Parts: sequence; structure tokens; C-alpha cells
Amino acid sequence: MIKLYGFPISNYYNMVKMTLLEKGMAFEEVMVRPSQESEYLSCSPMGKVPCLETDQGFLTETEVIINYLHDLGQGPSFYPDDPFEKAKIRELIRYLELYIELPARRLYGDVFFGKPASDTEKQSVRKELEKGFAALRRLADYSPYIGGDTMTYADFYFLFSVGLVTRVTKKALDWDVFSTEPGIRELLVLLEQRDSVVAIREAQNAPM
Amino acid sequence: MIKLYGFPISNYYNMVKMTLLEKGMAFEEVMVRPSQESEYLSCSPMGKVPCLETDQGFLTETEVIINYLHDLGQGPSFYPDDPFEKAKIRELIRYLELYIELPARRLYGDVFFGKPASDTEKQSVRKELEKGFAALRRLADYSPYIGGDTMTYADFYFLFSVGLVTRVTKKALDWDVFSTEPGIRELLVLLEQRDSVVAIREAQNAPM
Repeated sequence: MIKLYGFPISNYYNMVKMTLLEKGMAFEEVMVRPSQESEYLSCSPMGKVPCLETDQGFLTETEVIINYLHDLGQGPSFYPDDPFEKAKIRELIRYLELYIELPARRLYGDVFFGKPASDTEKQSVRKELEKGFAALRRLADYSPYIGGDTMTYADFYFLFSVGLVTRVTKKALDWDVFSTEPGIRELLVLLEQRDSVVAIREAQNAPM
Repeated sequence: MIKLYGFPISNYYNMVKMTLLEKGMAFEEVMVRPSQESEYLSCSPMGKVPCLETDQGFLTETEVIINYLHDLGQGPSFYPDDPFEKAKIRELIRYLELYIELPARRLYGDVFFGKPASDTEKQSVRKELEKGFAALRRLADYSPYIGGDTMTYADFYFLFSVGLVTRVTKKALDWDVFSTEPGIRELLVLLEQRDSVVAIREAQNAPM
């Protein structure tokens, strides 16, 4: 059986977990933290989570794992069939990851772990995020899903990246993304109602 | 006909160009530089190159474009058929991009554009690159291609990322990657002999 390595607070872990749950695939969760121990590096070469164990070996990187699960063809597909439409969903995923989640990540220490960021750092992140959200506005649809009227893997990314980023911008930058970026709040609310997400939130809130 | 936007010095542009050439697909090149002009942003929402124009619209992000071209199914495939083996090639691409090219990029100003980087910045990049190359060693094969005995899209990434990074580490960090990372030089030499790469180098060396 597929084993998913990681921990329930990790947003990337939860993107993969949501994929597995939405597809109705059987899997086992193995609780690990990121680690530079050589034993873990032999499974996950950068020491990161999530990591997936399959009968054929280990895989890392959320985007790689989700596309692998897609390619297995089990359960529903969350990509359009048309190559161009599929590419537009992949493009949304890249923008969410590289231009929204990655810059905001530089403030996670400030917001979640009591490691204050300098004003220079905060302004640098704000500038990058403004550019990222402006780019997202050109690609995102919110009718009601991020890529159109059908839920896709990009929505799984959206929920666990933008959902977190709105809290970070609010706390560290006093920036209410909900008021500057129309459509975001409604889609987050919609996605939180999925059975898969309810299960993920329960695991997040359970004592470790 | 497909139009590829960018310029011949861009390493990501050349990854896509190599894909098109290796697949024998017809395309037209449109010379553009990264730009924040609103007209270009309507094609490429972050203002970056490369950007691909298709009959259905525009696509950005090298990984998105290459997978789109793959999904069209024209010309040879450079992914294995097996979902797990395909995922391992995708994983290599992610590592080359995120853990080798992206950190080294912070020194391109120092090496290519006369904007000196501080010693602190250089040491920070070195540390990241050491980790990235250590991770790559766990995944790469070099027999003779990076993923095994068959050339894949990961080799296109390898050529235009690692090839450049070796020059950056040499100049900015006095680090000869060829002597610390076995297999890299031989694969670069092999790939430079491809007709597609010879054509790309000619375009790079032509006066703009």
C-alpha cells in the first residue's frame, strides 16, 4: 500500500493527502518531520516532506507525487482532458507555488515561530506577493473553482497555500488579502466543506 | 503555428527550444525580453520568458510548456511510459530547477552582470548548492543520461541549468563542480553534440 510520509501541519503534505482522499485511494500515513538524517535522505534526498513510498520506490516533491497519483489513473481525475486546458491548470499550480507560497514562506518564522522578520524583509516579501497576486488575478477564474466550473488539483494547492498566506499577510504585513483579491474567500469557504478537508482539519487539530 | 517567446541567452527558453527541436515540431521564434508592460503581462502574467503562443492561447513556465508539448504527442517522447519511472524523471527536473539552478541564480548578477555579491551571500549560495548537488547525487544516474540509458526532458534541464551553474560556481565560489561531482562533465559533452544543441549554440552566438 502507498505510504505518505510527513506531518499534519505541513501544507504540502495536506495537498497530497487531499489528492489521495479525493481519489479514494488506500494509503497509510507515516509521521515524520523534515530531517537531514542519512536514513531519511535515502528516501527524500533534500530531507523534506512529503515523501511517498510506493512498491517501486520513493518519490518526493508535491507536484511530482500528485502527477504520479494522477498518472496511475485510479479514482476521479482532477485535470481536464484537453492538453491546453490541462496546461493552464498546471500553470496555476506553478504560480500558486512559486509566486504566492514561496515568498510568503519567508515570513512563516515571524508569524508562526516567534522569529521576527526585519522591516526590509517584510517589504521585500510584500512586493513579491503583490506581483504574485496580480499575476494570479490574470489566471484565476473563481467560477467557483480556481480554474473554472470544475474542481482541479489547482484547488488543492490553492486551499493549502493561499489559505495559509492570507493569515501570514494579515499578521506580518497588516494586509487583508480577502479585501484586495476578490473571489479568494468564497473559494476557501467552499473547499473547507469537502469531506476530505474536514478530515484533514481534524487530523491537524488532534494532539500529536 | 506555435510561437516561442524569449531570447537566445535565456537558459529556460533554450530548454523549451530543445524540446521543440528534438520533437521536430514546427515553431516560430519571437524575440522578447522579460517585461512588466501590460501588453506582455496579458500573455505572460509574471512578465517572464519563455512564453508559448498556441491556437488556444498563451502558456508560461518552462515545466508547464514542456509537459504541454509532451501531451500533444507529436514527435518522440522523452518520458518513460511507466508512471513511476516518469515521476522519477519529473523529480530530477524539480531538483535541477529548485535546488541547483534557483540558488545559483542569486550569483548571476555577480558573474555575468558586474554586480558583486557579498561574501555572506556567496557562502549562503554555496551551502544551498552543496545540499542541492548532494541530493542530485542520490537521484542522478549518468549512464550516460541523467535518468538512465535513455535521453529524457531531464537532460534538457540538466544541460541548460547545470551547464551554466558550473561556470557560476567556478567564477564566484572558486568551486570546480566537475571535480567534485562525477559524471556531470561527460554528460554535458555528450549533450552538446546533439544537432538541436548545436543549433541553439549558433543562435546564442549570433549577433542579436
